[in-house]
Amino acid sequence: MTAAHPPAMAERAPPAGRLQRAPEHHLSADDLRAARRRAFLRQGLVLGAAGALARTAAAAPEGEDAILKLPPHSTTLGLPVAARGYGQPSVFEKNLQRRESPGLTRVSAASVAFTPLQGLFGIITPNGLHFERHHQGWHDIDPAQHRLLVHGLVANPRVYTMDDLLRLPAVSRIHFIECGANTGMEWNNTAVPTVQYTHGMLACCEYTGVPLSLLLDACGVDRKAGRFVLAEGADGSGMTRTIAMERALDDVLVAYGMNGEMLRPENGYPLRLVVPGVQGVSWVKWLRRIKVGDQPFGTKDETLHYVDLMPDGQQRQYTSIQECKSVITSPSGGQVLLDRGFFNITGLAWSGRGRIRRVDVSTDGGRNWRTARLEQPVLPKCLTRFNADWTWDGSPALLQSRAIDDTGYVQPTIVQLRAVRGTRSIYHNNAIQTWEVGVSGEVRNVHLG
Amino acid sequence: MTAAHPPAMAERAPPAGRLQRAPEHHLSADDLRAARRRAFLRQGLVLGAAGALARTAAAAPEGEDAILKLPPHSTTLGLPVAARGYGQPSVFEKNLQRRESPGLTRVSAASVAFTPLQGLFGIITPNGLHFERHHQGWHDIDPAQHRLLVHGLVANPRVYTMDDLLRLPAVSRIHFIECGANTGMEWNNTAVPTVQYTHGMLACCEYTGVPLSLLLDACGVDRKAGRFVLAEGADGSGMTRTIAMERALDDVLVAYGMNGEMLRPENGYPLRLVVPGVQGVSWVKWLRRIKVGDQPFGTKDETLHYVDLMPDGQQRQYTSIQECKSVITSPSGGQVLLDRGFFNITGLAWSGRGRIRRVDVSTDGGRNWRTARLEQPVLPKCLTRFNADWTWDGSPALLQSRAIDDTGYVQPTIVQLRAVRGTRSIYHNNAIQTWEVGVSGEVRNVHLG
Repeated sequence: MTAAHPPAMAERAPPAGRLQRAPEHHLSADDLRAARRRAFLRQGLVLGAAGALARTAAAAPEGEDAILKLPPHSTTLGLPVAARGYGQPSVFEKNLQRRESPGLTRVSAASVAFTPLQGLFGIITPNGLHFERHHQGWHDIDPAQHRLLVHGLVANPRVYTMDDLLRLPAVSRIHFIECGANTGMEWNNTAVPTVQYTHGMLACCEYTGVPLSLLLDACGVDRKAGRFVLAEGADGSGMTRTIAMERALDDVLVAYGMNGEMLRPENGYPLRLVVPGVQGVSWVKWLRRIKVGDQPFGTKDETLHYVDLMPDGQQRQYTSIQECKSVITSPSGGQVLLDRGFFNITGLAWSGRGRIRRVDVSTDGGRNWRTARLEQPVLPKCLTRFNADWTWDGSPALLQSRAIDDTGYVQPTIVQLRAVRGTRSIYHNNAIQTWEVGVSGEVRNVHLG
Repeated sequence: MTAAHPPAMAERAPPAGRLQRAPEHHLSADDLRAARRRAFLRQGLVLGAAGALARTAAAAPEGEDAILKLPPHSTTLGLPVAARGYGQPSVFEKNLQRRESPGLTRVSAASVAFTPLQGLFGIITPNGLHFERHHQGWHDIDPAQHRLLVHGLVANPRVYTMDDLLRLPAVSRIHFIECGANTGMEWNNTAVPTVQYTHGMLACCEYTGVPLSLLLDACGVDRKAGRFVLAEGADGSGMTRTIAMERALDDVLVAYGMNGEMLRPENGYPLRLVVPGVQGVSWVKWLRRIKVGDQPFGTKDETLHYVDLMPDGQQRQYTSIQECKSVITSPSGGQVLLDRGFFNITGLAWSGRGRIRRVDVSTDGGRNWRTARLEQPVLPKCLTRFNADWTWDGSPALLQSRAIDDTGYVQPTIVQLRAVRGTRSIYHNNAIQTWEVGVSGEVRNVHLG
């Protein structure tokens, strides 16, 4: 390993000031280092999956002798068990963080911190890296003091403690959550540089909680007049969202568990709504109230915000389902391919309508497509991880992925989407994403057509 | 909420010194508080799942008026996004930790810290609570310096850097890992008091890595003579395990990813072997070497340790597959049922041979059984979460679960297991676990028969 060929992994925790980028991208040098953490070594020329590991002198700079010399950690006593009762990542991973895009909003309490998709594997998002979107900041609420009120058009309104809820029949399910504004900057021609900032309002967790239908039935919901439900959070933003009764009685959860443990404070501890397939704003955090009504509630968060502005100046309300979408997470914007040869193209696909049926990958901007491998499990309203083999010959390339869900819906191009939706929208951009690989190996976000 | 009826959730972070227990159990008062975190409120009398939430005066001590008064966190600005780049659990969850059983081994660097199963949901184990079992402590190894050597009966021995491995075709899979010594104290009549200590050398994660078969093929493994593989870790214990070639070429992974992020240092960062269905010791951490040979290597960790001592004094070696097993995680030992009425019985089932087909639950020590609900997904060599409704009438009860896998194998009783294996063993105890609920509501570990 020579200085001329720095190992890609060193990008995980590089010395300060090695990389720079124009400030208008709202990215610090640290961001770029994180984005480049999966950049790849110039060495190790390999040509296809099966023969990917043909041995070359360059690929094995050290021989058996070198590796058989024991490093210090092989000859010393390590740290004890439970050195940390609650474990933490390696110090070498400290640059892999959720990050705010400074300037995106006027205050950080009403902003976004994005999931670092470029550095993640599989479908489970670690709780410590789950994106954050708050409207008036987050609190760590004492669960002993927290209450959930169910009222409105019900025979028996009721206040639940957390203890009440933890006694009830529990269900666990793995689902994605995506903010309706994810990928929103791409509507006009702002090519946000990294996948953390283009698609990082996305996560996927195993949630555990009580079916909302069980609570509604227990309170004697009026199934005739009660056609809508209002969910309200306990933060200072007065976050409120309407959910149709049909959906509320389907797969909505009043959840306390997230990836095996209690929810994190930033994600609604001790209680949040889980509304599978629907945009994140409806997954009300710090859930304190469910009210049953006979019409949509028309709150500020569904009339002023989270509406789709159409080309004719009208706006669509209550377009809350996240349509079928996918993105290549590596190689992706801000990363650098340090040599030609074999690469694993990997990414995520999801649909608010059901399961992913197929993901296609193109390396020439959508002229030719081939089918990617889907990792198991493939679950409804859940992220699906895909992988595809690719040998880069050093020419410019345009990497795209295109997902198809089990309704037959095909993820559109940005051109197709703009033909209907225009360019004045913020929300619900599920277009195919293009990453351009330059001859230098640098990968960047480009808009085709 | 009165002082006489403390909320169960308050047990998550109680004032010091409220609970005591005999020191011979190796449990601190803190341990017990954590074990009791899911103890339940005396209030809220409910009678079965459907009618579980009939409203009573006791169940809703506060009315709508009280809940509609806004608490401070609903009227103040909260914390900003990315207040912590890598998120942490709520301060109210600080007692949910992996814990060492003091005195189990002579030094903490060669000990165990157990997963707090009693407080977890679903099947995914949060990385921060994954059990630890080290033989000479753990290190945080610099991935830029780490190497994997593949050699022995291969045409082209090779040294891989982490960068080499990250370029290769990746797969992601969710699997359980269980230490072969899990539940080992129960062989003789030591009834360890909580499920954290009886079954807490168990976890389940989504792993991402390179199939070992790909590396072996790339190095030109001798498929005729090469019948076994040796895996060696980079810690000071010289941990080495033999794996049959048939298994090595099947579903074994050389893994770097764990629940979406890089492995944690305590779990082998930056590289460990994942050997689905097989006891944890073979999942060699800090993996540095794979050697192909023509016979089992017979190392200290498979001849002196991790062997099954039989009643006739002989020992079984290489009995590494974790057979079908299950355990109720709540209610479980150390918890207290603070009232009669409805409870959700929940637990985990798994099999090293494949998928879980069915889990039965008994509340009378195995005389009567009924089928539990299995949460999705049900995957091979993976934890499966089960739930069952139960209304406690205040009489003594004996809670058991019994798992059946898709080979038809039925989890045995401890009596059945001892008839074959005796009581001198440490490893591979997959017997049915019994939790006794006393009239006081206290739950404890008992051995039947």
